Amino acid sequence: MAITVVGSVAFDSIETPAGRRERCLGGAATYFSLAASFFTQVRVIAVVGEDFGPEQQAVFDSHGIDTRGIERAAGKSFFWEGSYLENLNEAKTHTTELNVFGAFEPKIPEAYRDSEFLFLANIDPVLQRRVREAMPGVKLVAGDTMNYWIKDHRPALLEVLRGLDILLINDGETKMLAGEGNLVQAARAVLRMGPRMVVVKHGEYGATAFFGQSRNGIDAKTFRAPALPLEEVVDPTGAGDSFAGGFFGYLASQKELTSGALRRAMFYGSVMGSFAVERFGTERLEKLTRNEVDARFEQFRELTHLD
Amino acid sequence: MAITVVGSVAFDSIETPAGRRERCLGGAATYFSLAASFFTQVRVIAVVGEDFGPEQQAVFDSHGIDTRGIERAAGKSFFWEGSYLENLNEAKTHTTELNVFGAFEPKIPEAYRDSEFLFLANIDPVLQRRVREAMPGVKLVAGDTMNYWIKDHRPALLEVLRGLDILLINDGETKMLAGEGNLVQAARAVLRMGPRMVVVKHGEYGATAFFGQSRNGIDAKTFRAPALPLEEVVDPTGAGDSFAGGFFGYLASQKELTSGALRRAMFYGSVMGSFAVERFGTERLEKLTRNEVDARFEQFRELTHLD
Repeated sequence: MAITVVGSVAFDSIETPAGRRERCLGGAATYFSLAASFFTQVRVIAVVGEDFGPEQQAVFDSHGIDTRGIERAAGKSFFWEGSYLENLNEAKTHTTELNVFGAFEPKIPEAYRDSEFLFLANIDPVLQRRVREAMPGVKLVAGDTMNYWIKDHRPALLEVLRGLDILLINDGETKMLAGEGNLVQAARAVLRMGPRMVVVKHGEYGATAFFGQSRNGIDAKTFRAPALPLEEVVDPTGAGDSFAGGFFGYLASQKELTSGALRRAMFYGSVMGSFAVERFGTERLEKLTRNEVDARFEQFRELTHLD
Repeated sequence: MAITVVGSVAFDSIETPAGRRERCLGGAATYFSLAASFFTQVRVIAVVGEDFGPEQQAVFDSHGIDTRGIERAAGKSFFWEGSYLENLNEAKTHTTELNVFGAFEPKIPEAYRDSEFLFLANIDPVLQRRVREAMPGVKLVAGDTMNYWIKDHRPALLEVLRGLDILLINDGETKMLAGEGNLVQAARAVLRMGPRMVVVKHGEYGATAFFGQSRNGIDAKTFRAPALPLEEVVDPTGAGDSFAGGFFGYLASQKELTSGALRRAMFYGSVMGSFAVERFGTERLEKLTRNEVDARFEQFRELTHLD
């Protein structure tokens, strides 16, 4: 089933202990789409500037991603510059230029309206809510957010949470959102805000799925997926969005949202996150094959399973 | 098969967000012994003072732990006072009184000499080495250490590592010991120092086992065991030692050190660590039953397994 994703398509300049890259293709919607495209049809809603050319378009095209919802505006695309020199787990932002993204008003192509899955990547919750409301027919809605929205845009974010089935969020954000230091209690508090499933991402330690009351078939027991211990993390940018893409893409490819499907989706999320960080920007996801995805899924099983 | 463990038996005064306890029975060898006693015969080598009375002795006795190697010395037992008020992952030490432990000279009872498993808990590596050399007939030796010995007693510690089959150590200690920021590379560097297996403990995120060249039958693929997401951590003291006890105790109960046994041992380590933190000091381990241990093992399987 098709996923519509709304979020940023951007250029990133990134410095890590492994080196530096200027103006890689980036943005949450980009990483999400590439990761999800290995499992299902993906449709993107975003805005780019005149610097988004055939080279960038080709990345989406080669993965069969529908870009009719990517608006071309006069000006430059969203640009982010950051580094991970001291700590690979935390980006240090040097520059953020919203550019055309500052006036982003998501427009949903007619052809996207039959999408059954909707992913609201990390953008202003006011926009997340607008897209959610414009697509009342979707079967399952998942979303992401970040500390900035939790801290300074809480009322708008809480409205988004009420309409979400699944929230993907990291440890610190979960605790901040709940105002609670114990992760389990924080996740339970977030579940009371609306979502039926909260996926808490632990970075290099994997992710844990917590479940609230059953709705839309989402019902399972707490589940922890590992991350792959990696000898080198070249660039952590996009790991969380790639996790979300693998997770939601796999779910959208399944006939039913069984407990087993939700668990395997957590593993596929970790799988896609583990590939994303192996090269700068989207380099690794661009060249990835489905066989490599399946082989790594088995590697994750070996890493964690007793039998 | 019997395990001999050498380490501290102590009194701890502990403050956590859940409350405060004065002079609980503590010490690495105590937690290790209690946890391991659910799986196999345990024999302790330690020194205590005149404050170690029938009440403390009864804790060991009720778990069938051999205490003939616990020397009674004139003076007071090792005493530690610490708190976890700001961060449950890191103890803040207020007082350390070595007392009789300051002149500890491990003596090995004749009855311990046929032990096939030896655990060197976190003490001065000079003492660890002495005990290791006094028991040349043991089949498998595991040990623990801490940042203090890594930083200031490196040559003595490196000699201990050469004689270890398995080292249990946390993330930060692994990186410090190896002088390497990437965990996988750090673990590989530590494996080159002697041990055939390094168990890196990630606290609330579980633990990962890394393997070097095969020796003494220890040969398996990298394996990650989860920790249990807990609604409340009452007292983290002794979690790592309880992990070690569950891990090594289970191994000692197995006929062969197969890859499967090593993996299950990682799970039993996590199981015992998860119980230890539920109450202050050794309270939870003292009242634990084998049925509870097995039920929680199944809970860990459910938490991580796809099928």
